[in-house]
Amino acid sequence: MNSVIDLLKSHRSIRKFTDQEISPELFDDLVKSGQAAATSSFLQGSTIVRVCNPEKRSQIAKLAGKQTYVETAAEFMVFCADLKRAGNYCDVYEKAFEGDFTEHFVIATVDVALMAQSMVTAAESEGLGICYIGGIRNDPALVAKLLELPKGVYPVFGLCLGYPDQDPEVKPRLPLSVILKQEVYNEEGDKQAIADYDERIREYYRTRTGGGHGISWTEQVSSLLSEKARPHMKEFLADQGFKFR
Amino acid sequence: MNSVIDLLKSHRSIRKFTDQEISPELFDDLVKSGQAAATSSFLQGSTIVRVCNPEKRSQIAKLAGKQTYVETAAEFMVFCADLKRAGNYCDVYEKAFEGDFTEHFVIATVDVALMAQSMVTAAESEGLGICYIGGIRNDPALVAKLLELPKGVYPVFGLCLGYPDQDPEVKPRLPLSVILKQEVYNEEGDKQAIADYDERIREYYRTRTGGGHGISWTEQVSSLLSEKARPHMKEFLADQGFKFR
Repeated sequence: MNSVIDLLKSHRSIRKFTDQEISPELFDDLVKSGQAAATSSFLQGSTIVRVCNPEKRSQIAKLAGKQTYVETAAEFMVFCADLKRAGNYCDVYEKAFEGDFTEHFVIATVDVALMAQSMVTAAESEGLGICYIGGIRNDPALVAKLLELPKGVYPVFGLCLGYPDQDPEVKPRLPLSVILKQEVYNEEGDKQAIADYDERIREYYRTRTGGGHGISWTEQVSSLLSEKARPHMKEFLADQGFKFR
Repeated sequence: MNSVIDLLKSHRSIRKFTDQEISPELFDDLVKSGQAAATSSFLQGSTIVRVCNPEKRSQIAKLAGKQTYVETAAEFMVFCADLKRAGNYCDVYEKAFEGDFTEHFVIATVDVALMAQSMVTAAESEGLGICYIGGIRNDPALVAKLLELPKGVYPVFGLCLGYPDQDPEVKPRLPLSVILKQEVYNEEGDKQAIADYDERIREYYRTRTGGGHGISWTEQVSSLLSEKARPHMKEFLADQGFKFR
């Protein structure tokens, strides 16, 4: 196994950072590493808004559900799906703008995630720790207001970057047989494999919290899917011009 | 700059592969590298369907727009957003399934992209080349049928993996100032920076095609956004249970 594979496999989110800054040269290099990722139809539909202002960071930390590391990380940025930049040129070339199809939403959202993940790998290769902040979607309208996001742009997630001040364990993932299927989608054997995995996860939480009952993976994720998750998203996205046609 | 950053910055899609196979051990390791990426709320909402059957590969190559490398790559797989695996446990724990909100769609789609991109980096670190195949969304219903994808699962993109039999140039990306914003979204200076970039891209295509007029970035991407792109996606996704509530 090579060192890049080792690096990737050792990912864990970092939520406590030292106050060491990231040099501007390194930061730019990380962004360029992200930019080099594949982009659908060469759209390059991603924009990063880097947030330094402490007051703004504090507001975002709060709306994201009291995620204080948004305030304390050396860098915090919001990754946005951006159809405006390319869309501007529909006007210039006198083409009708039709960029509000579901497909365009998928393209831009995937573009953002690919870029972010390459940036994350670059950061981790430099000894930095990262934490994605999906919690910005708790109040995307406020985020859009704080960052002055125009129509055609939506905030997908935030990202904290900094030098780690903690060393958490890697969280075990589902068995390979459960997530990798041959030729067709097939759930054979998954039930037992997931039951075994549930016990591993329960143990993982039990160890981390120093006792107690722990919680299994299926208990956690079934809760997520039995919630009316962020029901404002559809309307917010429509307001930003993502109409899911 | 370290070697991981160099590796990330040197990405280019590979569309011509040797017939060298990928060892099963390495393949599993690549998938595990992908799995280790962050996953929103620990959902692990990704499933990979590995396609080996030549007839099936040929059908997918065709529907994706005659992308013959889908047939010739050592490995081809379809990355699926999967809410079914977790959703199954809503029944088990007698919770109502509500996993058809727009937010759930975002979570699962981002999960898939993060996983794929880490797998891609692992692959490239081993000297493999990759090509994402968004073209599977030309006929996602046929892909779903071929792969027997149940409700709650949708094919986001395909991925070709193999040892490169070509050495294309890295395609220049937008200037950093255009995609990285400070504090707020601000288009100041973008117009000129994009005009300069347009000339670089025109030159890039001119060089590759051995003459001709070339095409600029803005010409390309404005076309993408003036198309009713894959208008079947919304209905297909609804059929698969992604209702964008």
